[in-house]
Amino acid sequence: MKKVSHSSDACSLAKSMEILGEWWTLPILQEALLGTKKFNDFYNNLGIAKNILSVRLNKLIEEGLMEKKAINPNSKRSYYLLTQKGLSTATIIIALIQWCDKWILSPGEIPMILKDRLTNKKIPNLKIQNESGDEINIWDIITTPGPGATKSIDYRFK
Amino acid sequence: MKKVSHSSDACSLAKSMEILGEWWTLPILQEALLGTKKFNDFYNNLGIAKNILSVRLNKLIEEGLMEKKAINPNSKRSYYLLTQKGLSTATIIIALIQWCDKWILSPGEIPMILKDRLTNKKIPNLKIQNESGDEINIWDIITTPGPGATKSIDYRFK
Repeated sequence: MKKVSHSSDACSLAKSMEILGEWWTLPILQEALLGTKKFNDFYNNLGIAKNILSVRLNKLIEEGLMEKKAINPNSKRSYYLLTQKGLSTATIIIALIQWCDKWILSPGEIPMILKDRLTNKKIPNLKIQNESGDEINIWDIITTPGPGATKSIDYRFK
Repeated sequence: MKKVSHSSDACSLAKSMEILGEWWTLPILQEALLGTKKFNDFYNNLGIAKNILSVRLNKLIEEGLMEKKAINPNSKRSYYLLTQKGLSTATIIIALIQWCDKWILSPGEIPMILKDRLTNKKIPNLKIQNESGDEINIWDIITTPGPGATKSIDYRFK
């Protein structure tokens, strides 16, 4: 990334981290993306304390990333389901997994492989692409102030 | 994502978050991706306490995401530069920014726009693609145990 002149704005990044950065939140979302729906399955699969799981699930519901729905109209039991907003965290979670698998673990240590169901081939690493789909270098990204840039951000872009 | 049978493994995700999840670490990396190199520029641009900035930069050096290099052979002043491992966090940071801009902020609140320097067009949102470059649906991703799957993970994949 290259600044137009002199700037950064951690604002969007910081806002995402406020919602997603609490311990256990991303593993719960990953578990939901893997298909888990029931409280006890989250509990058993994650090895998380029930009270913390409950707090985190309620926060995710409050933030609109998950919703709680009765398994059927006569049941008191519920499913915890991802909303579109929750499903959209998949790119964040996959980016974190791929970075770890490439830079932290040795090839023999990789615990889980993500594959395309239709081709049974490994999902390639996420790429930063331009509008035409060409991969672009990080230093070819420039930043400009958006409509919500504050005065201090505007100043830094000058 | 769809499980082959019944599993999740938060391991790679958790390992990434151990390194990147501390408060200020991602904003420092974003600032470095935006071109900041000097301690005082990180300090001024981020509004972070000097002692915390120092601890975080040293941790990033220790973890191999950044390196400290003298500005020139005769200088006592240093640049903090991203390594390839640090540069590779760009997909994580961009995924977090794009998620916030799409799901948290209204269009008028977006503080910063990422553009391709060559075309001056906005960088599109990251896509999950298969080997051929086709975008795939999150539910068409399946997970299989990797070479480093532990016994408990293997069991859960059965």
